[in-house]
Amino acid sequence: MKQFTSVKDIPDPIGLVQDTIKLKNNHRFSDLGKNKTIGLLFFNPSLRTRMSTQKAAQNLGMNHIVLNVGQDGWALEFEEGAIMNGTTVEHIKDAAPVMGLYCDILAIRCFPNLKDREEDYSEKILQQFIKYCNIPVISLESATLHPLQSLADMITIQEHQKQHTPKIVLTWAPHIKPIPQAVANSFAEWAVGCGHQLTITHPKGYELSEHFTEGTVIEYNQEKALENADFVYVKNWSSYHEYGKILDVQENWLLDNQKMSITHHANIMHCLPVRRNVELSDELLDSENSLVLKQAENRIYAAQIVLQKILETNF
Amino acid sequence: MKQFTSVKDIPDPIGLVQDTIKLKNNHRFSDLGKNKTIGLLFFNPSLRTRMSTQKAAQNLGMNHIVLNVGQDGWALEFEEGAIMNGTTVEHIKDAAPVMGLYCDILAIRCFPNLKDREEDYSEKILQQFIKYCNIPVISLESATLHPLQSLADMITIQEHQKQHTPKIVLTWAPHIKPIPQAVANSFAEWAVGCGHQLTITHPKGYELSEHFTEGTVIEYNQEKALENADFVYVKNWSSYHEYGKILDVQENWLLDNQKMSITHHANIMHCLPVRRNVELSDELLDSENSLVLKQAENRIYAAQIVLQKILETNF
Amino acid sequence: MKQFTSVKDIPDPIGLVQDTIKLKNNHRFSDLGKNKTIGLLFFNPSLRTRMSTQKAAQNLGMNHIVLNVGQDGWALEFEEGAIMNGTTVEHIKDAAPVMGLYCDILAIRCFPNLKDREEDYSEKILQQFIKYCNIPVISLESATLHPLQSLADMITIQEHQKQHTPKIVLTWAPHIKPIPQAVANSFAEWAVGCGHQLTITHPKGYELSEHFTEGTVIEYNQEKALENADFVYVKNWSSYHEYGKILDVQENWLLDNQKMSITHHANIMHCLPVRRNVELSDELLDSENSLVLKQAENRIYAAQIVLQKILETNF
Repeated sequence: MKQFTSVKDIPDPIGLVQDTIKLKNNHRFSDLGKNKTIGLLFFNPSLRTRMSTQKAAQNLGMNHIVLNVGQDGWALEFEEGAIMNGTTVEHIKDAAPVMGLYCDILAIRCFPNLKDREEDYSEKILQQFIKYCNIPVISLESATLHPLQSLADMITIQEHQKQHTPKIVLTWAPHIKPIPQAVANSFAEWAVGCGHQLTITHPKGYELSEHFTEGTVIEYNQEKALENADFVYVKNWSSYHEYGKILDVQENWLLDNQKMSITHHANIMHCLPVRRNVELSDELLDSENSLVLKQAENRIYAAQIVLQKILETNF
Repeated sequence: MKQFTSVKDIPDPIGLVQDTIKLKNNHRFSDLGKNKTIGLLFFNPSLRTRMSTQKAAQNLGMNHIVLNVGQDGWALEFEEGAIMNGTTVEHIKDAAPVMGLYCDILAIRCFPNLKDREEDYSEKILQQFIKYCNIPVISLESATLHPLQSLADMITIQEHQKQHTPKIVLTWAPHIKPIPQAVANSFAEWAVGCGHQLTITHPKGYELSEHFTEGTVIEYNQEKALENADFVYVKNWSSYHEYGKILDVQENWLLDNQKMSITHHANIMHCLPVRRNVELSDELLDSENSLVLKQAENRIYAAQIVLQKILETNF
Repeated sequence: MKQFTSVKDIPDPIGLVQDTIKLKNNHRFSDLGKNKTIGLLFFNPSLRTRMSTQKAAQNLGMNHIVLNVGQDGWALEFEEGAIMNGTTVEHIKDAAPVMGLYCDILAIRCFPNLKDREEDYSEKILQQFIKYCNIPVISLESATLHPLQSLADMITIQEHQKQHTPKIVLTWAPHIKPIPQAVANSFAEWAVGCGHQLTITHPKGYELSEHFTEGTVIEYNQEKALENADFVYVKNWSSYHEYGKILDVQENWLLDNQKMSITHHANIMHCLPVRRNVELSDELLDSENSLVLKQAENRIYAAQIVLQKILETNF
């Protein structure tokens, strides 16, 4: 494995999920990463991703170096040919290869700005690190995708599914701020990549990029979508078409017990952090059906299997 | 040991002090913490606590993950049932158990706000972490107590006491800002817990909570308190009764050589950081009687014995 | 080795360069630093220095503790006898020895303020840490020198020189902000210390302190300086004589291919970060003659040899 930025980097996603479950149950600690260093670059804040990736690296005996870009270092320039007489101090063309010399693997967290869709969906930051750093790169959530979250989600579904073809529903939920589409995009492409049947439900205007939802069913009626669902993944995202906007939504999209009664005793999923009683009610989050802590726990093993595959393949 | 937040968590404080001195003198390094991770959460800045706890963990072969809450992550919500449509991004009910899944021990630094006494003295932040994280919790100074400091202080007294029952005096000192009562509260309860005779002296109005000073002598006359003292612990705190206030004090409470001449060649203690020539003079801080660096050094072993006891008991 | 702050701390700089090349080629990983801790104190941002020093410590099996002073901790007082009733919270006389108790080696990054030359050139911060911390100190760039960078530069020259006495030119370059003289001062004293012939070229008014340039040739005509150069080190610095000022410069000091044609196919060096197309053109930075990434890589081994010498000598 050369990079981990999307399900498309994985030849056999189902096999990867199965390998992770084996790792989790039998081989949590090893020395595979001895004398290897992972650099963790944060352009944005992070709690689960930061901690779970550090834990995963430690489980493999790897060293890690954390760099809060901007805070510990300085502003980076991403424009080719820029005359750097402004606020940026170092060009990605210099910073990335240097980091590549100091680390064996680079893991990068970089959010979209939600203003310029073309720029965000080009994954400018992540792609330039990949282009210039000369070592394997792991996405810790990029402008458009969150593959470690999605892998953890797939592991969690695998661990809790009772039949071979569960009905999985990704439902849009309200939020007070414009939120990236990354988790939703990523969940869609991983669900399809793992052979799942995925129904996505959201208000009109909240259609995700078709690039990521190919192979899924779009159903605007939330109740209809929830019928007989086995897993309900709750997530807000801002509009892709009116990019980064919060659209006016009249209906009530907040999940509640009554809506859940339509499902097949569905498990409830969310990537966290969750705005309680805005995106999802206390009632449902604290119910036995909630898998949110299982998903969070599986973030460790998602990160660890990816590190392991990269270590095995590249060194 | 399940948690370390107060002397009340320790069945045998005297024994713990003795065990620490043995550890310090004979067994500084071990592999007891191999493949175990301590999470260090800082809601407030820290120098000694941050560095000494990291050092202690490293001495035991433990991994550590540092999280500067707010800076690396985001604002946490602590209110039960909150509708999270404001500035907080994640509820303690979600964040704490996730941290509990990623770490084996959680250590938390959280200061009081010094505005709402009831809230501070309920130890809302610390207690909610304990309630929700499902792993052992260590206080790195909470709203009302600083047990690792006090344990280090008890070790330092044990190492320097010449007779069995030294006279220990905790004297209030001036400061320019409202300071928590945590160090003073904690020193009082540990001194009593370790069987020491403690006299507390302070201007009227600076009485500490009786909850922590039971078993000590309160003496408003500083000079009378200092008579024949063997250890003088100097510390400012803001008023508990007029909560968080700096009261008007006419007399001079700054310690000097003349006042020290009343004592029994007393050792001088302070937890640091100290405002030189405001809380304590250069003259006394730089004298041979000063134990402040010994106290600071013992912070490593205080943290290490606590980690060791938790590791031995829980894993 | 007791400290590493200047070439003057090194009895045999040429031998140190040769030892580093051996280390780099044969002995990258060891357990020499087991159970030893390096404290990394940053008063200023850092990318290469931060990451390469962490990597070097990890290569030696050392633990490290990073402290972003001010951000993780609080403002330090440096004035002897200060009455600390202002914004500083802890005196260097207390903070430094405490850090010295928690760490085995202290490494410090502290920039000049570029306002008070006397204060900067007294190296107040660095020298007070050395005075008070009681353990070996490594400069991670101080107010006036950047010895780890210079050692890496000397290693890079040694690896790429084709004849015994290469002509080395340090040329001033434009910049939009006042930049410290540290890299230039340091390069000059290390080049001389390693027996190199160094020509320094810069506009009038940009003379460096003679304290550091003894043994070098100053040539105000850039083209004349570049004649037959084998290595061209490009670097901006603000004025030493009109301290911290950017002076009006009429001529074009930006290096280009035409100027490079005067040289002896010279290698181009820069310590990074570099303002592309302000200090140095894309064309030259991305050319085969550029050694900037080699210099950056050698930062690891420069830090590692220094740590190794200190560990071997002091413990």
